[in-house]
Amino acid sequence: MKTQTQTIINGVNVSQLFETIDNIKENKKIAKFNFRAKNKWIDGTENQTTVSDFYGACKTHIRETPHVFVKDEPLLLLGKDKGANPVEYLLAGLAGCITTSLVAHAAARGIKIDSIESTLEGDIDLHGLFQLDESVNPGYQGINISFKIKSDAPEETLKELVELAKKASPVANTVSQPTPINVRLDN
Amino acid sequence: MKTQTQTIINGVNVSQLFETIDNIKENKKIAKFNFRAKNKWIDGTENQTTVSDFYGACKTHIRETPHVFVKDEPLLLLGKDKGANPVEYLLAGLAGCITTSLVAHAAARGIKIDSIESTLEGDIDLHGLFQLDESVNPGYQGINISFKIKSDAPEETLKELVELAKKASPVANTVSQPTPINVRLDN
Repeated sequence: MKTQTQTIINGVNVSQLFETIDNIKENKKIAKFNFRAKNKWIDGTENQTTVSDFYGACKTHIRETPHVFVKDEPLLLLGKDKGANPVEYLLAGLAGCITTSLVAHAAARGIKIDSIESTLEGDIDLHGLFQLDESVNPGYQGINISFKIKSDAPEETLKELVELAKKASPVANTVSQPTPINVRLDN
Repeated sequence: MKTQTQTIINGVNVSQLFETIDNIKENKKIAKFNFRAKNKWIDGTENQTTVSDFYGACKTHIRETPHVFVKDEPLLLLGKDKGANPVEYLLAGLAGCITTSLVAHAAARGIKIDSIESTLEGDIDLHGLFQLDESVNPGYQGINISFKIKSDAPEETLKELVELAKKASPVANTVSQPTPINVRLDN
């Protein structure tokens, strides 16, 4: 009988992480993921997204309980504030992705983290959304993220980790690189 | 006494929408918004975002009840699936933004919409996240969105609306254009 010791750092199973990386090195296809969402307009500025299945490690995985999100706009932007608005959801995804990237890369290096908090902010000019000025991009002009990290690791190591976390983060790269979006009507 | 008739199309108060646009034309500063989020690492791949205040129309607005989101990873990606993962949150934001953009631009043109459903999907190769191959971008390689729209409007008009909705959408532009992200450690 074989006994296995699992190394857990920052709540991340590092043994499983290295095993996953080894599996990817043996079979590149394991790294290919496809993420999916279904969206339904409710009324006015309110809509609802359901996230259930995804493809990865060569098969489709279906969650027993889907994750459901309500999005809306605040009153000032013609909504009823039943949920955060889409550009705030983007900040939530970005914050989560860089944080998880940071925690995992720290764990892989054996660096213990006690806490991570971050604040994010970005400017948007509604001239873009309302198509009032062609020279104004409707999206965020830029996004600033400030991290506060508690750890015994030296400040310099933590600074490197923040940069590495951003460099490796799927959401950060989707935002900072030009990512093609293809829309089509399938009535 | 002045009585006002409010025109509501697709649940959008079109009178308020045009009033907002007129106000922006008179004072450009009204269009300047700043959206914000606070994020806290919980454990492992789990983290929590709180969205409360934002700046817009020349002042800060604080919601009475903040919106709180839990993000996690599925078991396959070392998590406990307590929430959708960050790249799925990005899809939720994108779906919501293009849908709201579509509904509002339709309303502004007097086009009534009965229903909108959409499915989104995008490929991610984990070679990027795990920094196993420098040539692989960690982000989405591209995102495909398929819309089904019920409306009396001609098919051609709906196709134009889908394209206009994407063109005007803040999240779609944040993703499709290169948007700078600045991270810093503020310990």
